[in-house]
Amino acid sequence: MNHPYLGGANAALFTDLYQLTMAQAYVAEEMFEPATFSLFYRNLPDDRNYILSCGIEDVVDFLCELRFGDDDLAYLRDTGKFSDAFVDYLADFSFTGQVHGLPDGTPAFPQEPLVEVTAPAPEAQIVETWVMNQMHVQSVLATKAARIVHSAAGRPVLDFGLRRIHGADNGLKAAKAFHVAGVAATSNVLAGQVFGIPISGTMAHSYVQAHDDEMDAFRNFVGEFPDTVLLVDTYDTVQGVKNVVRLAEELGDDFQVSGIRLDSGDLAELAEKARRILDDAGLDDVDIFVSGGLNEFEIRDMLDQGAPIDGFGVGTAMGVSSDAPDLDIAYKLVEYAGRGRMKLSTGKPTLPGAKQIFRRDRDGKAIGDMLARRDEALDGTPLLEPFVRDGRRIRRADTPGRARERADKRLSVLPEDILAVDRASQDYPVELSKALRDHRDQVQAAVEAAAGDQG
Amino acid sequence: MNHPYLGGANAALFTDLYQLTMAQAYVAEEMFEPATFSLFYRNLPDDRNYILSCGIEDVVDFLCELRFGDDDLAYLRDTGKFSDAFVDYLADFSFTGQVHGLPDGTPAFPQEPLVEVTAPAPEAQIVETWVMNQMHVQSVLATKAARIVHSAAGRPVLDFGLRRIHGADNGLKAAKAFHVAGVAATSNVLAGQVFGIPISGTMAHSYVQAHDDEMDAFRNFVGEFPDTVLLVDTYDTVQGVKNVVRLAEELGDDFQVSGIRLDSGDLAELAEKARRILDDAGLDDVDIFVSGGLNEFEIRDMLDQGAPIDGFGVGTAMGVSSDAPDLDIAYKLVEYAGRGRMKLSTGKPTLPGAKQIFRRDRDGKAIGDMLARRDEALDGTPLLEPFVRDGRRIRRADTPGRARERADKRLSVLPEDILAVDRASQDYPVELSKALRDHRDQVQAAVEAAAGDQG
Repeated sequence: MNHPYLGGANAALFTDLYQLTMAQAYVAEEMFEPATFSLFYRNLPDDRNYILSCGIEDVVDFLCELRFGDDDLAYLRDTGKFSDAFVDYLADFSFTGQVHGLPDGTPAFPQEPLVEVTAPAPEAQIVETWVMNQMHVQSVLATKAARIVHSAAGRPVLDFGLRRIHGADNGLKAAKAFHVAGVAATSNVLAGQVFGIPISGTMAHSYVQAHDDEMDAFRNFVGEFPDTVLLVDTYDTVQGVKNVVRLAEELGDDFQVSGIRLDSGDLAELAEKARRILDDAGLDDVDIFVSGGLNEFEIRDMLDQGAPIDGFGVGTAMGVSSDAPDLDIAYKLVEYAGRGRMKLSTGKPTLPGAKQIFRRDRDGKAIGDMLARRDEALDGTPLLEPFVRDGRRIRRADTPGRARERADKRLSVLPEDILAVDRASQDYPVELSKALRDHRDQVQAAVEAAAGDQG
Repeated sequence: MNHPYLGGANAALFTDLYQLTMAQAYVAEEMFEPATFSLFYRNLPDDRNYILSCGIEDVVDFLCELRFGDDDLAYLRDTGKFSDAFVDYLADFSFTGQVHGLPDGTPAFPQEPLVEVTAPAPEAQIVETWVMNQMHVQSVLATKAARIVHSAAGRPVLDFGLRRIHGADNGLKAAKAFHVAGVAATSNVLAGQVFGIPISGTMAHSYVQAHDDEMDAFRNFVGEFPDTVLLVDTYDTVQGVKNVVRLAEELGDDFQVSGIRLDSGDLAELAEKARRILDDAGLDDVDIFVSGGLNEFEIRDMLDQGAPIDGFGVGTAMGVSSDAPDLDIAYKLVEYAGRGRMKLSTGKPTLPGAKQIFRRDRDGKAIGDMLARRDEALDGTPLLEPFVRDGRRIRRADTPGRARERADKRLSVLPEDILAVDRASQDYPVELSKALRDHRDQVQAAVEAAAGDQG
């Protein structure tokens, strides 16, 4: 898994400038006590009932490999913004802290930490940008994919998003996040090479157009790929399906085409027509795939109508999570030097201290979470697990396959209305433990008293 | 500019599987005649009146460096999907074609090509994924940034988006796209290092929270960074501003703080209050920056209210173009073997042949575009320029600064209602030349006749 697009130590300056200026101030003040930062989201985006956490492995790889190279130090010196003492500090920098997090494929709810980082303040601060950048997009995309997979009700979903996914490394990681969320295969060949994910794809309209007629294109393509999926809507969909039938007649026993794909028009109606034409010709085993700007609602509606569709190719809606491309995720200081910390800014209170999430179940179904202080031992399954101790990975990296199994298991126990693509009438229950509530109240009183002193 | 996140030949498999299967079929059929593909968008997203084209330099770099390595070939062989003949073809592959495109920072309208690639069919097909991936996101983000810069009416806009921008290489390229679109500085330190873009950033709430009180935090921070911008809303914004005044009293002539930043609450109202407190204390030269979930509409509204704001930090709304994270961009075959090509699928007709765009102006204002055949010579400035000939770059790469100057010049001549952040009542005029219309009609008739023959 050593691909340039997967990042790592060659991107030490992948950070916001304020992380470095704050770090310099911490270093100058000798503020090396442990700081705990918690990464969580505040509110569910529209239509969402959960977020599927994804990205922790890339966080761990980056933190454990992070070093500032000579070029990085030279650039920082040249900006004229930093002290020599701080540049010297960075020359010897490595991450020496602890990371707890949700393993990829764990559903998480508002206020629940996806990642908690505990390290000397400058270290924990500098890594914020990478931690948030990776967890944010991978969780946003995994969540969207899980919704689309759910809407397809057991039929395969194929990731066709690479051309419009934002960016190159993200194209690769998105394919992984989609795989974790249950997507059957990706068009992204690089993801196949790097992660061993199944790859999928056959032909586009350009191939048909480059030939003098559609029949020529079909004939030639199956010469190279006998069991392919033929795209039938370049000129006229019904005629395209008839041309597939004609090809079957021409080829006889050599006809091995496994499916057709419809990419425009009223897909449910065209799928009906295509199914009838194929069945009438005895081509019952030719599957029908549809694509073309699909999202989870359109897929659900087509299946509700009983459209005879065997699989879905999904591109942009999944690739950029187009209805909710961002999540109000935050990486907040919750403890420093053994004392809980809170921000009181309007409308954005935070919960102090390191935490644990206990997911409780009854009869094999999740019934609610208890958000607790880290050291509590309560009923239910603790979800945050240690990944890094003293700057070293202490847990073998998940394969995408293992994370996919976890996602399947952890999603399948959620209540049906939480898994549904519409917003549930009631949120999934998340309570705060008594110890966490008490701690919050104490810290809040202390912070308000200190703020009052300054008035 | 040789950074792993900038991509290039190390990502030959950054492609959709169907590009490779189609390429194998083209190779098997010896379809090596020149194919021209046109990258354009069909419809403007909500509220947009133009798209600011960006990304061509990364397209050119990739195409000119693209080679398949031994690992890539071994992987493709192992999939069992490809013929030995095709893998051998890829072993010797390089891009030998031509690329015309819009230089970064050129506004473009629906149906106008951003890029046209002409090359032997398998080559032009294989590169589609990269061409579209890069042009799509960079143009989407540059457009959003140009809107935000416009709304700020001359006040600096700072890019704070890196933590939620999708992906790592895209974080870097987004900062470049924002710079092209007129954003004043970025928080992204890597973009500073790689592109020489100005970087910006001082402190976050965590720094204040890590101290026992806000005054301590301010005192210590200005010890390291005397001319910094202080974040004043961690606990109580008005008290935070008063603490800045207190700091000025403590420091006397040593007080060099250049600004304050408000990140929550009613920003216009708080800016008013802060301005009054600062002015009353003789701190007229302390600027007020605001941030916190801003977009172009909120910025416009605050300035319309007369809020005394000197600059804007913008994060997620710009970083993911949250209201329109995708664009219905397409890379369509428009000519093969000297014959124009069209797709007739429902609702998605294409214009055949290689093209040129002529932008016409009167009294220094753009008055409309003429979309023409490539070889026409019409009134106006031709916008598509040659970048690659016979697989070699024939035009020096733009610096981000040069592209920024171009964008400024080409945006400033557009009609004011096209530049505005609301949808204009009338689209910018784009006509088709007579030669293009005639060609379209001829090709359409020929394609329909061929399609009819198959019925």
